[in-house]
Amino acid sequence: MPEITPRLDFQIGEKAEFSKTITESDVVMYAGLSGDFNPLHVDEEYAKTSRFGGRIAHGLLTTGLISAVVGMKLPGPGAIYLSQQLKFTGPVRIGDTITAVAQVAGWLPEKRIVTLKTDCFNQRGEQVIAGEAALLVEPAAG
Amino acid sequence: MPEITPRLDFQIGEKAEFSKTITESDVVMYAGLSGDFNPLHVDEEYAKTSRFGGRIAHGLLTTGLISAVVGMKLPGPGAIYLSQQLKFTGPVRIGDTITAVAQVAGWLPEKRIVTLKTDCFNQRGEQVIAGEAALLVEPAAG
Amino acid sequence: MPEITPRLDFQIGEKAEFSKTITESDVVMYAGLSGDFNPLHVDEEYAKTSRFGGRIAHGLLTTGLISAVVGMKLPGPGAIYLSQQLKFTGPVRIGDTITAVAQVAGWLPEKRIVTLKTDCFNQRGEQVIAGEAALLVEPAAG
Amino acid sequence: MPEITPRLDFQIGEKAEFSKTITESDVVMYAGLSGDFNPLHVDEEYAKTSRFGGRIAHGLLTTGLISAVVGMKLPGPGAIYLSQQLKFTGPVRIGDTITAVAQVAGWLPEKRIVTLKTDCFNQRGEQVIAGEAALLVEPAAG
Repeated sequence: MPEITPRLDFQIGEKAEFSKTITESDVVMYAGLSGDFNPLHVDEEYAKTSRFGGRIAHGLLTTGLISAVVGMKLPGPGAIYLSQQLKFTGPVRIGDTITAVAQVAGWLPEKRIVTLKTDCFNQRGEQVIAGEAALLVEPAAG
Repeated sequence: MPEITPRLDFQIGEKAEFSKTITESDVVMYAGLSGDFNPLHVDEEYAKTSRFGGRIAHGLLTTGLISAVVGMKLPGPGAIYLSQQLKFTGPVRIGDTITAVAQVAGWLPEKRIVTLKTDCFNQRGEQVIAGEAALLVEPAAG
Repeated sequence: MPEITPRLDFQIGEKAEFSKTITESDVVMYAGLSGDFNPLHVDEEYAKTSRFGGRIAHGLLTTGLISAVVGMKLPGPGAIYLSQQLKFTGPVRIGDTITAVAQVAGWLPEKRIVTLKTDCFNQRGEQVIAGEAALLVEPAAG
Repeated sequence: MPEITPRLDFQIGEKAEFSKTITESDVVMYAGLSGDFNPLHVDEEYAKTSRFGGRIAHGLLTTGLISAVVGMKLPGPGAIYLSQQLKFTGPVRIGDTITAVAQVAGWLPEKRIVTLKTDCFNQRGEQVIAGEAALLVEPAAG
């Protein structure tokens, strides 16, 4: 087991990010994992007739990149999710490359709670998710 | 392509739900899909030393059951996610069976926006997520 | 349970091979299984700016085809991997069809160890992996 | 696209690590991804009769954790794999938690090649893989 020493100080404004291309495989697997087979995500014939003109990724699939950036980088390993607010501000199409950006908005050292702006952007810089998260940073007992 | 005719009226208080057992496979696959390998989720030796005493599911993995209930049942196929608020109020352990419940809190027919309470409970009735969602209900053009 | 009788003689120079097209799904799933989200493999926008001009497969994903040929064909079911040397001599792009070739280089009957050249080639015959493996061939007790 | 600026200096002896519990799901999915259905990995009845007394993980599945540590941490994003040597020094059973450790053994700044010791250990500190890797560190052109 690696030594995991969570950070216990954060600067307002510091940032971390994580990027991934959202593929057809991601959409298929997320449908299977969640049980959300909304035809906007899994039925190309239906989706062609929608305002999007084709299948789009599940909003909560894209949100997973926020999970990655907060769980892996800021605040990082060992952090415990308390809350997440999400506005889905634009569609994510298959093949889009999404960057999740977490930026420290607040830090309460006595409660060990860090609050973050959590936004996602596509490869053209268009915002697709606007959000906020709170996480508890806790050293493991071991 | 099946005919998908979205509902255009909702009663305040009406409910739908969806349940699934969260397995170790779900957690492994969600880590892989999201990129979130926080050791609380994927490293049993670390997780044993945490307050939870073992691996827990990603909060956003459990949230996927809300995606299922809103995308499949209420408001159902064709609905477009506008926003989701989430509080993670308790841990979900591997083997827990989670029920996501969506309940209509508001309906704006002129904007075709339905708002929902979206809560998740484990097999003992303990709440693990408290949330709210807004969805746009839209007939496909085709 | 099928009867598995491992071979206990091998001719220097004998060969076996296994081919598979490396798809975008393979790359997405391998990232998830390994935890390796190097942007060369999962971020098309970044990868376009690299020397490869687009996403390439993980070297160890392609190596899996060697695992298949040694575990399934030569020496085959029941073989125990002792070592593997690998040189990654060329990129594997999404859509390439890779053939893994194992060829017997040595056989120590008293130790039941077979050594193999293990090379991989793309659909144009270009070598992408050059390697060597050693496996222990062992009859099951049952 | 995030700015990815690869490091161009390394200290001999510096270390990074990554840990994950190897689950039955990982073994099943790796068999499907690689095509290696060696009964030692996928046939519990056969594996019970082997020296291991049950299914073990594919050696190259465990090796994926080395891919993660070199692709994500040391040298990190953008690194290109040149070679990997592997000795499989002990079995990995379903449920074992494996830590991959990469440690800088050499750095050739004019060629931008970093060499690493790459070892894997289980939760009892027993070594299961001993290896060495070489990676090319390259700034993207963009």
